[in-house]
Amino acid sequence: MQFEFSSDKTYDIIAIGRACVDLNAVEYNRPMEETMTFSKYVGGSPANIAIGSSKLGLKAGFIGKLSDDQHGNFIRQYMADAGIDTSNMVTDKEGHKTGLTFTEIKSPEECSILMYREKVADLYLSPDEVDEDYVKQAKILLVSGTALAQSPSREAVIKAVELARKHDVKVIFELDYRPYTWGSKEETAVYYGLIAEQSDVVIGTRDEYDMMENLEAGEGENEDTINHLFKHQPNLIVIKHGVSGSYAFTKDGEAYRGHAYKTKVLKTFGAGDSYASAFLYALINGKDIDTALKFGSASAAIVVSKHSSSEAMPTVEEIEQLISEKENQ
Amino acid sequence: MQFEFSSDKTYDIIAIGRACVDLNAVEYNRPMEETMTFSKYVGGSPANIAIGSSKLGLKAGFIGKLSDDQHGNFIRQYMADAGIDTSNMVTDKEGHKTGLTFTEIKSPEECSILMYREKVADLYLSPDEVDEDYVKQAKILLVSGTALAQSPSREAVIKAVELARKHDVKVIFELDYRPYTWGSKEETAVYYGLIAEQSDVVIGTRDEYDMMENLEAGEGENEDTINHLFKHQPNLIVIKHGVSGSYAFTKDGEAYRGHAYKTKVLKTFGAGDSYASAFLYALINGKDIDTALKFGSASAAIVVSKHSSSEAMPTVEEIEQLISEKENQ
Amino acid sequence: MQFEFSSDKTYDIIAIGRACVDLNAVEYNRPMEETMTFSKYVGGSPANIAIGSSKLGLKAGFIGKLSDDQHGNFIRQYMADAGIDTSNMVTDKEGHKTGLTFTEIKSPEECSILMYREKVADLYLSPDEVDEDYVKQAKILLVSGTALAQSPSREAVIKAVELARKHDVKVIFELDYRPYTWGSKEETAVYYGLIAEQSDVVIGTRDEYDMMENLEAGEGENEDTINHLFKHQPNLIVIKHGVSGSYAFTKDGEAYRGHAYKTKVLKTFGAGDSYASAFLYALINGKDIDTALKFGSASAAIVVSKHSSSEAMPTVEEIEQLISEKENQ
Amino acid sequence: MQFEFSSDKTYDIIAIGRACVDLNAVEYNRPMEETMTFSKYVGGSPANIAIGSSKLGLKAGFIGKLSDDQHGNFIRQYMADAGIDTSNMVTDKEGHKTGLTFTEIKSPEECSILMYREKVADLYLSPDEVDEDYVKQAKILLVSGTALAQSPSREAVIKAVELARKHDVKVIFELDYRPYTWGSKEETAVYYGLIAEQSDVVIGTRDEYDMMENLEAGEGENEDTINHLFKHQPNLIVIKHGVSGSYAFTKDGEAYRGHAYKTKVLKTFGAGDSYASAFLYALINGKDIDTALKFGSASAAIVVSKHSSSEAMPTVEEIEQLISEKENQ
Repeated sequence: MQFEFSSDKTYDIIAIGRACVDLNAVEYNRPMEETMTFSKYVGGSPANIAIGSSKLGLKAGFIGKLSDDQHGNFIRQYMADAGIDTSNMVTDKEGHKTGLTFTEIKSPEECSILMYREKVADLYLSPDEVDEDYVKQAKILLVSGTALAQSPSREAVIKAVELARKHDVKVIFELDYRPYTWGSKEETAVYYGLIAEQSDVVIGTRDEYDMMENLEAGEGENEDTINHLFKHQPNLIVIKHGVSGSYAFTKDGEAYRGHAYKTKVLKTFGAGDSYASAFLYALINGKDIDTALKFGSASAAIVVSKHSSSEAMPTVEEIEQLISEKENQ
Repeated sequence: MQFEFSSDKTYDIIAIGRACVDLNAVEYNRPMEETMTFSKYVGGSPANIAIGSSKLGLKAGFIGKLSDDQHGNFIRQYMADAGIDTSNMVTDKEGHKTGLTFTEIKSPEECSILMYREKVADLYLSPDEVDEDYVKQAKILLVSGTALAQSPSREAVIKAVELARKHDVKVIFELDYRPYTWGSKEETAVYYGLIAEQSDVVIGTRDEYDMMENLEAGEGENEDTINHLFKHQPNLIVIKHGVSGSYAFTKDGEAYRGHAYKTKVLKTFGAGDSYASAFLYALINGKDIDTALKFGSASAAIVVSKHSSSEAMPTVEEIEQLISEKENQ
Repeated sequence: MQFEFSSDKTYDIIAIGRACVDLNAVEYNRPMEETMTFSKYVGGSPANIAIGSSKLGLKAGFIGKLSDDQHGNFIRQYMADAGIDTSNMVTDKEGHKTGLTFTEIKSPEECSILMYREKVADLYLSPDEVDEDYVKQAKILLVSGTALAQSPSREAVIKAVELARKHDVKVIFELDYRPYTWGSKEETAVYYGLIAEQSDVVIGTRDEYDMMENLEAGEGENEDTINHLFKHQPNLIVIKHGVSGSYAFTKDGEAYRGHAYKTKVLKTFGAGDSYASAFLYALINGKDIDTALKFGSASAAIVVSKHSSSEAMPTVEEIEQLISEKENQ
Repeated sequence: MQFEFSSDKTYDIIAIGRACVDLNAVEYNRPMEETMTFSKYVGGSPANIAIGSSKLGLKAGFIGKLSDDQHGNFIRQYMADAGIDTSNMVTDKEGHKTGLTFTEIKSPEECSILMYREKVADLYLSPDEVDEDYVKQAKILLVSGTALAQSPSREAVIKAVELARKHDVKVIFELDYRPYTWGSKEETAVYYGLIAEQSDVVIGTRDEYDMMENLEAGEGENEDTINHLFKHQPNLIVIKHGVSGSYAFTKDGEAYRGHAYKTKVLKTFGAGDSYASAFLYALINGKDIDTALKFGSASAAIVVSKHSSSEAMPTVEEIEQLISEKENQ
C-alpha cells in the first residue's frame, strides 16, 4: 500500500501544538540535583517533528503560540532559521510563559524529565488563531496529543482537524501523551478517541493507545485497537513497542513490522519525534511502508545517540547510510 | 420520509444534561423586582423534554447529576413520579448546587430569565458516570447543547454520543443554547459543530444554528446549514423561526414547513422543550414529518399558555385536540 | 462602663459586607423538598443589621456590591426605602450574581439553610471601592466576618478597618461565620484573628470564637478568649451562648450576663442580626451594657417569632415593651 | 540608637518565604535569546538572605515549601550545606514546582529577569505548616513581601508575624516586591501596609514603599512614609534610593544616610539580599546604625561584582576589608 497526498499543496507538513524550550543537562550520567549547567534547545514534540521534517527537505509550517519574551523569541528565530514557515506562530499577549523541559540523564536507561507546563503559552492557542487558508495549503496536518490537554488549545486542534478534513489535508495524529495538564484519564481517553477516529494516520506507543482506550498500561491489544479505529477514518496505524520495534497496520488488512536499530544510546529523549518526521518524510516521498518504518527507526537511532533532540535531527543521507549499514550487517 | 428506530430497546428516549429548578414568578405582568413570591418547578431543557415525553407515554430515562441537597432531592422525586427512570441520575458529592432559573414575566412578549449556573451540579457529570449498558438501551439519546458548555459534562456528552453511535441509538441534538458558562463564541461553535456532525437529528432555532456556525445572529442561511450538515451524519434537520414557524429538511432532499398555532400566550418559556418532546413522540410513533411538525407546534402552543414548563406538558389527547381545532378552523 | 463615640459623625453606623436575597419557605413545618413557594426578602447579616438599625432610628449607611440584575435592583430599592444611605453600594459589572439563601423550617428547632454563594457579587467588592471620605463619617463601622472569606472583598474589609482606625471610627466585628466560600479552617482563623485584634467590639457565638481560635467547636473558653483579645484593641467582647444567654466582657475587667427572653419561636434565623442592631443602638444611645444586652435579647426574641429576618426587625417601642413585660413577670 | 534582641533564642534569624532556582546566563553581555547555557544556583530573596546571614556567621533557619523533585532536593541540600536549619522546609505533595528565575545580563546597566512563578511550591506554604515552637526560637523573623502575594502562603506569613509578636521575636519586613502573581496594586498595598504596620524594621526601595502606599512610582515621600509607619509598630525604617544610597530612620527621630560603594558591576541582581543580610548581621552584633548601613552597602558592592547571588555572599572579613578600603580612600 502506498499513501497518496494531494499534489497541489504549498506545504508538505504543517504541525500544530507546542514549541517549547528544552534545558538539557550539560553534565550527565548523574542525578539532576548534581547537574549545575543546562543547555538550551527548542523542544516539544510537534516542533521537533517540524524541525526534523524541514531538515529532511520537507516544506514545513507551524501553528502555535509563543510567549512574548526571550524564550518565545528564541524559538521563533530558531524555527525560522531551520526553514520552517512561522507566519502562523502567534505571540501570546497575556503573559503566558514558554513551557520548559529539564532533562536528567542518569544513564542511557535512566532518563527522566522535569516539565514546567503551568499556563504555558502553547495551551492558549485559540480556535480563531487557526486560519482555514493556511491549513488547507498542507499535505499533512500533524497533530500532537498534548495540544488537546487544555482549552483553548484543545478547541484550536479540533477546529484544525475539521478544516483539514474539509480541504483534503491528511491528518496525522501523534499521540504524544504527557501526563501533565490533563484533568483525568477519562478526559484524556475522550479526546484521544475523538481525534484518532477523525485522523488518517495514528502513531503512538502501545502505552499511549492504552491511554486512549482508557485501559491500564499493558492491558491493550493491537488487534482491538485496529478493529476499532478502522471502523472510522484511519487507514494507517503505527504502534510502537519500544526496543521490540514497531508495527504498521493498514485498513486493507496488511501488517508490517519495523525493527529498532541498535546504537550507542546516550539518552532516550527525542526518539519518537525523529521517528515520526522520518516516517512521514518517507510516506510523502512515495516510499512503501516497510521503507518508512526503516526510516523511522534509523532516524530514532541517530537522535538517541546525541545530546539534543531538535539539533540532532538527521539528514536523509545520514538516515540512508545507517539503514544501509544496518541492513547489510 | 419516515424515521426508523431500533425496535428492541428498553427506552424510547434517554436524555442527558441538566435537570434544574425553575422559580417562576407567582405575581406576573410586572418586573421581577416587584415579584415577591416564586413557585418551584423542575426545569432545564432535557429534563423538560424527558418529562414531556413521559407524559406523552414514551418510556424515558435520564443521565445527569443532582446536588446533594433539598433541591436535588426534589428533582429526583419529581422525575421519578413523572415515570422517568432515574437510576442514572447520580448525586454530586462535592457540594455543587442545583442550577436555578428565576423567570420574569413582564408581559407575554417580554419574558426574561435570571440564571444561576456557577459550578452547578449538572455540569459536573463526568464521562465515567455515563454507562454504556444504559445508553445502548435507548431508541433515542437526546443531547442538550448546554451540557457541552463545560468540562467534565462536555466529555460525558461526547462519550455518550460515541456510545450511542456504536450501539445504533439515534442521536437527537437539541441545540438549546444558553450564553451562560460558555467560554467564548469560538469555543461554542467548535463543540456545537462537532456534535451536530455526529447526530442523526438536529433541532434548534435559526439563531442557535448561527451560533453553531460562528456567525452573527441573522447572518446564517438554512441552505448553507443543511448543505454542510448533510455531508455528515444528520439526515433530519429542524430549524425553528419563531412565530414564522419551523422547517424540517431531510437528507434525501425534502423540505417541510410547520406553522405556529395561535394561542393566548402567558409567557414564552418552555416552548422549545414541549415542541421537541411532541415532535420526537410523533417520530417514534411512526408518524410522518408533517404530522410531527404539527405535534411540536401544538405542544408548544399549549405550554406557552400556562404558568410552568414542566408541569404544563400536555398529553397526546390535548395535542390532538388542539391540532384538530386549529386545522378545522 | 459606657462606650463613647465621636459626636461629629454623619452616620451612626456604616455596615460593610453582603446584602443578599433570602427565599423563605411560604409553607413551613415541612422539609424544603415539599415547599413549593418561596417569599423574597433582603438578607445577609450586615444588610439585616443596617435595616434593623435604621428601623430603630439610627442613621445607617452601607458599603457593598450588588449584582447588575433584578435581584440587585430589588436590594438597593429595599434598603433605600428602609432609610439607609446606598450611595456606596456599587453595582458589579462582571456578571456576578446576588447571593441567595433558601430557608427550610421543619420545626422551630429544626431550621436549616441552603446557600448560593459561588462567585456572588458581594465578595467582589474591591479595596478601591472603599472610600475613605465615607468611612470616616461613621461612628461605627460594622464588619461582617463573611466578607473576609474571599478576595477582593477580604482586602476591601482590611482596608476599611484600617481607615476606620485612622479616623476614630469604632470597629464592631460581628463574627457571622458561614462555612461557605472559606478555603480552610486555618485560613478562617488567620483572618478572624487579624480583624478581631484590630476591632473595638467583637460580637459572636461561642462556636464562632472557637473558629477564630482554630479550635474544635466546644473547646474554647471565654477566659482565654478575653485574655488574648484584651491584649490588643478590643475593649468590649460579647460572647453568645444560645438559649443560655450572652456575656459581655470589658477591658477594665467587668463581666455582664444577658438572658434570653422566652418567646414563641417560629424559626431561628435572624436572631443574631436583630440582636446586634439593638445592642449597638443601645450603646450608641449611651445606655449601659446591662441595658444593651436586654435590648439585644428582646430584639432577637421578636424576630424569631416572625417569618422574615429583615422585614421583622422591631422598633424601639416594641423592644422596650417586650423588656418591660418580661422584666416585670 | 542600638537595636536590642532577646538573648535567649536559638536562632539569630529565621527567614520565611521562597527558596527557588536561579538560572544565570553563562554567556553574558548579550540578550538572553543568544544565551545558550545557564548555571543553576539557589535564589529567592529570603533564601539569599538566610544564606548570606549564615555565611556571616549567624545561626539561621528557614520556613518554606519545596517542590518534591530534583530542584527541591537541590535547594534543600544546598541550604543545609550552607549551615541553615532546614527542619521547617516542608516538601510539597501536590505537584507544585520550584520557582525559576532566568537572568539576562545585556550589560551591567541592563539586567533583566524572566520568572516562572505559576503555582510554585513556595506560595503553597500553609499556616498549619508554621510552627509556633520554631518561630519563637528566633531573634529575628525575616519576612519577604513576595510571600504575601497569594494564599495560602499569605496566611502563613500573617500567622508567623502574629506568633513572632507574641513571643518577642523582632519582625523584619523586606518589601521585596515582585509584580508576578499579585492580583492588583490595591491588593498589594493592603497586605504590604498590614504587615509593615506590625513589623519592627522595614527595609525596601523607595519604589517598593510607593507600592505599599498605593502610589505611582516616584510619587512617595520618605517623610510621609515614616510619619505613617512610626504611628504603628516599626521603630526602624530603611529606604533605599539605588546609587544615591540609603536612609535609615528611627522612631526616636534620628536619620542616617548610607552611601553606595563604587565597584565594578557585573550585574545588579542580589544587591538587595546581600544588603539585608549584612545590615541585619551588624544590628544583631550590636553595631550602630551607621555601621550597619556600611555593612549593607559593602556586601551589596561585593555581590554585584560577581556572577551569582547566593554563591557570592561575602564573609565578614571581605565586608570589613571593603569598608576599610573605601572609607580610607
